[in-house]
Amino acid sequence: MELEELRKLATSSPSKIVLFVMDGLGGLPIETGGLTELESARTPNLDALAAKSICGLHEPVGPGITPGSGPGHLSLFGYDPLKFEFGRGVLEALGVDFELKGTDVAARGNFATESGGLITDRRAGRISSEESAKICHLLQKNVRLPGVELFVIPVKEHRFALVFRGEGLSDKLTETDPEKEGRPAPKVLPLEPAAQGSADLANSFIDQAQKLLANRSNANMVLLRGFAKYPNIPTLPQLYGLRAAAIASYPMYRGLGKLVGMDALRTGETLKDELATLAENYDKFDYFYVHFKRTDSAGEDGDYDRKVRAIEEVDREIPELLRLEPDVIVVTGDHSTPSVLRGHSWHPVPVMLYSKYCRPDAVAEFSERGCAGGALGRFKATELMPLALANALKLSKFGA
Amino acid sequence: MELEELRKLATSSPSKIVLFVMDGLGGLPIETGGLTELESARTPNLDALAAKSICGLHEPVGPGITPGSGPGHLSLFGYDPLKFEFGRGVLEALGVDFELKGTDVAARGNFATESGGLITDRRAGRISSEESAKICHLLQKNVRLPGVELFVIPVKEHRFALVFRGEGLSDKLTETDPEKEGRPAPKVLPLEPAAQGSADLANSFIDQAQKLLANRSNANMVLLRGFAKYPNIPTLPQLYGLRAAAIASYPMYRGLGKLVGMDALRTGETLKDELATLAENYDKFDYFYVHFKRTDSAGEDGDYDRKVRAIEEVDREIPELLRLEPDVIVVTGDHSTPSVLRGHSWHPVPVMLYSKYCRPDAVAEFSERGCAGGALGRFKATELMPLALANALKLSKFGA
Repeated sequence: MELEELRKLATSSPSKIVLFVMDGLGGLPIETGGLTELESARTPNLDALAAKSICGLHEPVGPGITPGSGPGHLSLFGYDPLKFEFGRGVLEALGVDFELKGTDVAARGNFATESGGLITDRRAGRISSEESAKICHLLQKNVRLPGVELFVIPVKEHRFALVFRGEGLSDKLTETDPEKEGRPAPKVLPLEPAAQGSADLANSFIDQAQKLLANRSNANMVLLRGFAKYPNIPTLPQLYGLRAAAIASYPMYRGLGKLVGMDALRTGETLKDELATLAENYDKFDYFYVHFKRTDSAGEDGDYDRKVRAIEEVDREIPELLRLEPDVIVVTGDHSTPSVLRGHSWHPVPVMLYSKYCRPDAVAEFSERGCAGGALGRFKATELMPLALANALKLSKFGA
Repeated sequence: MELEELRKLATSSPSKIVLFVMDGLGGLPIETGGLTELESARTPNLDALAAKSICGLHEPVGPGITPGSGPGHLSLFGYDPLKFEFGRGVLEALGVDFELKGTDVAARGNFATESGGLITDRRAGRISSEESAKICHLLQKNVRLPGVELFVIPVKEHRFALVFRGEGLSDKLTETDPEKEGRPAPKVLPLEPAAQGSADLANSFIDQAQKLLANRSNANMVLLRGFAKYPNIPTLPQLYGLRAAAIASYPMYRGLGKLVGMDALRTGETLKDELATLAENYDKFDYFYVHFKRTDSAGEDGDYDRKVRAIEEVDREIPELLRLEPDVIVVTGDHSTPSVLRGHSWHPVPVMLYSKYCRPDAVAEFSERGCAGGALGRFKATELMPLALANALKLSKFGA
């Protein structure tokens, strides 16, 4: 159902929904016939919850499509990621807790190494975050663009976020990353006539940066990608009247929550901290998004055992979550990150939805194989939000 | 596949399809870990049919969406209820077997109690059907609207159907129900300029009714909702060349059948009567919709045991249905009505489709849990009509 149709059905109820996201949850066996990380992990609490839940496997974007973190989360929040696209620049700025305004244009920047007009290293040898921060500071202090405020914000290693703030800016701009070494970096071109001024600004930034960095042997060039404005997304409060909160220790996930109208709550580094924040704020909100990062990090690093341990850490904290007696609990991931692939993957993601009214299926093990036999089947992740709302009795009847 | 595409594939065959609808069939356990109404019921005949059928769970409107009776049935007849919406007024008129014409505008009326310009009881204390019928008669006899024929038809308790018949009427009108007591009832407003005349008629009806009822202490006001014209739906005869019949003891369901081009057959009060009607008319039609109401009524009343008994009553009559040897039998509900929720719900609905060619799955128990493991999976209810037609060999090949 379209969001505008759902909006008409939204009704208030005193119930609480918790969406618990284990980032990159889905996995793969190391060898054919083996177990996935989730299947290997000892998860008595998750399994007991699965036995009372309805289970399935969700597809964040579509069959065969490997989601980025943005699309993976948007779909869990009920937004079709094919309709609500937003550029990498916005995600990068959100990721460093930058307060993006609606008229800002953000881009993702890379420091790169150039020689004789050709890019010789697109990541400048992955320079340290400290060195990168110094270069950002240099550019922030010395680059001047007429009529535009500029922010050059360090992210991590060679990556930075670039934000232009001013009137009449456009994000309809081409990228300058040549994608392969040994090629020149193209100029920024406008994708529509009205973007000419913004293209000129971006090219002027690149020229000035190049001059300021000319005496360096590496990181003497900048590459810009993913020019984007803050997307115009109807928020969860607007759509469903939800008071929604994001509890995430990583800035980017707080940013993703803010994008859809959540309050990003201050919390600590650990899962225990996050659950303490949940408990402290439990009365103030109807919907909580809790994010756990380390399942994904372990998968990205190709560390099967560490991913297993991260899952087991979550399992140990599940009683703490249950103690609050949320009316609806959804436990899932935003995508799969099998350690054997060392990155995000297209595999559908295990999910369980618990409520008093969930109509449990026969699944009693929270795992890829278990969830494949669940009554939710394999389904679009965007269906989770209406299902959670329905189970919380927050949707009224459609039609007479 | 879109209806217009399906229409091109329709082909005639001598086979018979029976769609047997147990209203509000789907249910829930009373307590977590318990059985649903259908799982509790002793249903040897339904189970035996399930073993020869292909099973699944259908979603009438979409995940998490609780369907009204209109949308629930439309989807079983193959119409996307998000595309073919129709207003409460039409459903109300159909419910009393009123012969609605294409140019009529129908509304749902409530008798309400007003004092000092504020609505003090939106249902006039749920006055008796007898008293309501008297007031309807009074209004029918005395209200005069220039150039328009008027019908004020009693429904039940405080509810009535109002129909305007004339040329150039519009249903693009706002409602007058203030939705909460202690507020004034707003005037009917046109939603488009061409609806001004119809708004004037509706307001004149309200004014005259108020004057005629002024000496009453309750039920001295009317509230109007759901202005609607008969929807323009391509019928089953038009789409598939089907001779289709509705067999339902309740008027509203006969009306829903008529909406899509079915002949509404005269029948009695009981399921035995309905099946006798089916047998008597078996040669005259290709497609039969048989409706059984009491599963829903019991669910709405929160009476788990009565719903179980209603299901068992159906089970006992299944041999009578099988005796006719329909080529295709679909047994399902139009939505779920778990007695624990005392109303319609969003839960997908058990369904089995039997035909000689159905390719049965392993399901041998007609139940929520059984059907969750069926080969149809969880799917859109609109898929049932093409599946039934295909199993009846009434659809030709698509493409060369």
